[in-house]
Amino acid sequence: MTHIEKLTVKTGGYTDIIDITDKVNGLIRKNNIRDGIVNIHSPGSTGGISTMEFEPGLSKDIRAYLEKLFPYKERYDHHDTWHDDNGSSHLRSFFIKTSLTIPFQDKELILGTWQQIIFVDFDTRPRSRTIVVTMIGD
Amino acid sequence: MTHIEKLTVKTGGYTDIIDITDKVNGLIRKNNIRDGIVNIHSPGSTGGISTMEFEPGLSKDIRAYLEKLFPYKERYDHHDTWHDDNGSSHLRSFFIKTSLTIPFQDKELILGTWQQIIFVDFDTRPRSRTIVVTMIGD
Amino acid sequence: MTHIEKLTVKTGGYTDIIDITDKVNGLIRKNNIRDGIVNIHSPGSTGGISTMEFEPGLSKDIRAYLEKLFPYKERYDHHDTWHDDNGSSHLRSFFIKTSLTIPFQDKELILGTWQQIIFVDFDTRPRSRTIVVTMIGD
Repeated sequence: MTHIEKLTVKTGGYTDIIDITDKVNGLIRKNNIRDGIVNIHSPGSTGGISTMEFEPGLSKDIRAYLEKLFPYKERYDHHDTWHDDNGSSHLRSFFIKTSLTIPFQDKELILGTWQQIIFVDFDTRPRSRTIVVTMIGD
Repeated sequence: MTHIEKLTVKTGGYTDIIDITDKVNGLIRKNNIRDGIVNIHSPGSTGGISTMEFEPGLSKDIRAYLEKLFPYKERYDHHDTWHDDNGSSHLRSFFIKTSLTIPFQDKELILGTWQQIIFVDFDTRPRSRTIVVTMIGD
Repeated sequence: MTHIEKLTVKTGGYTDIIDITDKVNGLIRKNNIRDGIVNIHSPGSTGGISTMEFEPGLSKDIRAYLEKLFPYKERYDHHDTWHDDNGSSHLRSFFIKTSLTIPFQDKELILGTWQQIIFVDFDTRPRSRTIVVTMIGD
């Protein structure tokens, strides 16, 4: 059985980190698949999906280390193509990737006690984002 | 339902980036699964699969930032094992990973308008590569 | 068909790299799915799953480059939250991610000849870890 659902989040951009764990668990609970895997995917090339212990200190660390690796204010060849300013956002998205697959059992994500699923918006402006949540299983 | 298909790409190595979106969509269209997920996997330890806005400027940026992180000409302990020269290729593959899973609906990949699926060949020579495309769904 | 299995590994922490390929293949062989995908997931926020050519030289390289990017002895904002010392572990896990999906065919993982599936324990102490192995297919 396969179910494809969508959820929407509003973000501030600049590596804004959003905890979407409860929303994903909500979609799993309202469908009739008990055990399986869920794929969480952000269409577009300036977002990312991963997991972390969602707490403000670590969010700061993630932003600091991504900024050290791919500074927003740097000049990128991507800027010459469209005359925009989000080359760093694209590099971050290429490295972190826009999708993640996680198992669930008895209609509950299998995660560590201190582990949350996060969407990260790397773009350089506030956006409303659609995230595709696909459940497959029995 | 599950379908495992293969596609072949010729690459130049040294972080050659190949857009495989149309080939993956072609395999989805010729099979009888309408909605589901597709896993794209490059067997081997010197390739990578991710997504990006496939345009020459960003391809240059990706090559430049990977080179800054894992320079090809550096000495690596891996070279002592086999007396080869592709330690950087292996590190890049470990970080970017050789597989990616993405949903599709109505026989079409769910991607952003400016988002393509890419295979990246990190090895230090031209190669012919097999990529495994596995579709699961209804 | 879906099967969710678990395996346990003992690790030394500090980016200890464990080859789990045989254990995953063993779980695939003992179940009745012939072709499909397997999701390998480490619940928690200080582990990682990826693939590599599992040989001691490359393991050293991976540890060296992760240490250069996210040094264990650095000060992290995460430390202020819990007064612990594993901020680097969390950053590594966020970048490498805790899950990976790979296809299998005729009850055998589709991997390159020199490619192994690895669990990496980024935490700062020895631990016993549960890894969730979910198979979906026909």
